[in-house]
Amino acid sequence: EITLSGDARMGVVDYGNDPEFSARARVRFTMAGETDGGLAFGATFRADQATDAKGNEDMSAGTVYVQGEFGKFEMGDVASAAEAAFGDLDGVGYTGLNDYSDITYINGDGGDADSRGSVSLNPVNQGTGSLFSYSNAGFGFYVGLFDGVANGLSSVYEDAGFDASTVDSDMSYSVALSYGTDTWSAGIGYLANGDFTVDGTTPGGAPITADADGAEQIIVAGSGTFGATTVKAYYSDFDNWYFDNSYGLSVTYAADALSFTGYARRDSDVLAALTTDRTDQDSFGLGVAYDLGGGAALKAGIVDSDWEDDTIFDAGITMSF
Amino acid sequence: EITLSGDARMGVVDYGNDPEFSARARVRFTMAGETDGGLAFGATFRADQATDAKGNEDMSAGTVYVQGEFGKFEMGDVASAAEAAFGDLDGVGYTGLNDYSDITYINGDGGDADSRGSVSLNPVNQGTGSLFSYSNAGFGFYVGLFDGVANGLSSVYEDAGFDASTVDSDMSYSVALSYGTDTWSAGIGYLANGDFTVDGTTPGGAPITADADGAEQIIVAGSGTFGATTVKAYYSDFDNWYFDNSYGLSVTYAADALSFTGYARRDSDVLAALTTDRTDQDSFGLGVAYDLGGGAALKAGIVDSDWEDDTIFDAGITMSF
Amino acid sequence: EITLSGDARMGVVDYGNDPEFSARARVRFTMAGETDGGLAFGATFRADQATDAKGNEDMSAGTVYVQGEFGKFEMGDVASAAEAAFGDLDGVGYTGLNDYSDITYINGDGGDADSRGSVSLNPVNQGTGSLFSYSNAGFGFYVGLFDGVANGLSSVYEDAGFDASTVDSDMSYSVALSYGTDTWSAGIGYLANGDFTVDGTTPGGAPITADADGAEQIIVAGSGTFGATTVKAYYSDFDNWYFDNSYGLSVTYAADALSFTGYARRDSDVLAALTTDRTDQDSFGLGVAYDLGGGAALKAGIVDSDWEDDTIFDAGITMSF
Repeated sequence: EITLSGDARMGVVDYGNDPEFSARARVRFTMAGETDGGLAFGATFRADQATDAKGNEDMSAGTVYVQGEFGKFEMGDVASAAEAAFGDLDGVGYTGLNDYSDITYINGDGGDADSRGSVSLNPVNQGTGSLFSYSNAGFGFYVGLFDGVANGLSSVYEDAGFDASTVDSDMSYSVALSYGTDTWSAGIGYLANGDFTVDGTTPGGAPITADADGAEQIIVAGSGTFGATTVKAYYSDFDNWYFDNSYGLSVTYAADALSFTGYARRDSDVLAALTTDRTDQDSFGLGVAYDLGGGAALKAGIVDSDWEDDTIFDAGITMSF
Repeated sequence: EITLSGDARMGVVDYGNDPEFSARARVRFTMAGETDGGLAFGATFRADQATDAKGNEDMSAGTVYVQGEFGKFEMGDVASAAEAAFGDLDGVGYTGLNDYSDITYINGDGGDADSRGSVSLNPVNQGTGSLFSYSNAGFGFYVGLFDGVANGLSSVYEDAGFDASTVDSDMSYSVALSYGTDTWSAGIGYLANGDFTVDGTTPGGAPITADADGAEQIIVAGSGTFGATTVKAYYSDFDNWYFDNSYGLSVTYAADALSFTGYARRDSDVLAALTTDRTDQDSFGLGVAYDLGGGAALKAGIVDSDWEDDTIFDAGITMSF
Repeated sequence: EITLSGDARMGVVDYGNDPEFSARARVRFTMAGETDGGLAFGATFRADQATDAKGNEDMSAGTVYVQGEFGKFEMGDVASAAEAAFGDLDGVGYTGLNDYSDITYINGDGGDADSRGSVSLNPVNQGTGSLFSYSNAGFGFYVGLFDGVANGLSSVYEDAGFDASTVDSDMSYSVALSYGTDTWSAGIGYLANGDFTVDGTTPGGAPITADADGAEQIIVAGSGTFGATTVKAYYSDFDNWYFDNSYGLSVTYAADALSFTGYARRDSDVLAALTTDRTDQDSFGLGVAYDLGGGAALKAGIVDSDWEDDTIFDAGITMSF
């Protein structure tokens, strides 16, 4: 069985220059079946991802899964174990306003490089990923694993003369554990990108080799609901990464159809290559949403982030189908 | 709710050299919902447009809308106010034969540059557009608006050394009014592309600036049905455009499943850069169609246009699903 | 009426280096209608093919058809007459393992160049193709035809300095006849790519002309079912092609949900440009499949081919929706 769902949005966004119209529409395919033995299986991707979803060794969009009492096993553009367990902070605005409410996870999402401040952060793209999830009695257990075979290098490395075909990389992986009730949840995760070596030739013709320790990340996260208020927070520590640690908090207050969201986040000891004027990059967001029913909502938001040159804001309508 | 529709066609087309097989198939997604307060909303795009339809500040395919008693407001790859009001002349052939029956509107369609004779005519692409439509008691009122923020320059300008990031552009807009009954309609429209300045550097290294008056267009159009015959005509006057005026007429005669269409159009005082042998470019088309029922039709057409080196013709079948 | 179908797969594949995760998901649109006179018509393409399926003179994915008592006429990315009649040998593995069980047909499939050993084999892409099929009382008759108008040259020719716009090409075509009962089938086919000339300029600036005899192919193929065993075999002779002849055999044995497949194939007198170490390129495949019901199956395969540097193998799950 194949079902269609979709989303759309339109409104006005200001990235610091002039207000601009911004709109989009998307459709998602969801395929589901069941074997004679009761094993559930399926796949999902969006229409705009149709080409990436047939990527084979580099399936960089959509996922394929089997699911049974043993849990769920997925391949494709999977989230990391930690993102599957904790997700992200609550966002603001009808567009997300560059998604500073998204927590930085160093792997997952098809092994693609994360980017922050226009620098591509993951040097090795390990292609199609996998994720195992198991939940029972409030506990959630997650393991993410890539295959260690490089399907590409980040442009920073390629421009420096490194040759993707010479990458020798450890497997990238992630593990996470969570526990939750109806009103609160907490968990811990560990992610490791794997050490790697890569050879190449500088533009000047000299041979170069990079023998690099892969990035590592530890994250603790939790959320709690207190009446009409939901609070979510995380603290993450990094090694061999572009900043030493990152922590943040979001608060959402809901009153009938209306809801207010605020978040604050700090990325500490940011590498000088990414920022010239401070070592701590702070991001603050405020947003309001009004549910119109039937899948539509009005949303507006404002974000003040050290990652941006200007305060940015938007207002518009979101739709789900 | 999401519904699918589609179209396909196949046949033989001759662009002046040899006859060629020509075929295509397309699918369209249409999403529609309604808020608790009775506001209709939705979005539509084709499967082949899925990537462009999530273009945000440059949504160059598909549209998103809200609609109520106040009228309809759309964003995305919208038509200009005038095209929404008048449409185009009746076309010929199963492929449209390069669509010389389409009236030239200087903006709309996502702010993309119109092209004629392989010259890209709109220097500034203003990205995602918007269109407001209201109709009541036979009157139709339309306003199209772009945001004035440049999402790109035409290749003519880019090749000359102009830098898209330096464009300072007025908003592009269009207004149109129409009135119609069951048997006739008439209307008038005005379109303005907005003045703009753009800086750059010539290939030789010298600084250059263009301070240009935006194109303007006035158009009157009307149609009438006389028994089995439908006549449609327009006259359009341009300023700062590639031709001074353009006018044309189409006539369609329908007899049961059979219909005949002819059109004639003249683009006057065409810029020498677009044509070397005459200042008036004439286009004539003749076509016949036979409705097979069930969504299929046989169509054939022939077009003789000064914009083409040769007379072009086609014959084939069209299908709608 | 438009219906959706889909397929997905995931597992592990080893192309001779390290095992890699490999997964994909795809969705197909199938459109069908009927005229008042009872003529069936329709079109089909996959979501990832949406852009190529609207290719007009170069529709390189999907097909459009009309079908009646006279047979079926298709345009687009059609198979050759011989492929429509005989198909391919039975394949192995959940990915097909580079599909050496696919028989080499020199045209069809949208006129696109076949490739083997990374050399693009068809110099001229004739764009949108057509296929006529008629079957009655066990007989099948097939004619494939391209239009002889070049929509492109293979990269080998383009890199050598030949100019696609100067190609003068005969029409490419194919014919095939088959006869079959419930338990066996046999047939013969002939394919001709058409002679062509093409002009150009070498990188050094000298004018060059290629005046080439088009490839020709004769193929006989048959299949038989003996209890639980199905045997399929072909022999094909080529002129002006990259090998002189090719022959092969596949055997599939099915026992309830389990099935075993093996194939063997030899491409003889292979052009030295494609292989440095032998003139006969042999390929062997072995596979096992277990049908899980509901559209899912477990599959594993191993292929040892002279076209590959290493033995390759895979194991995974396939899904259809």
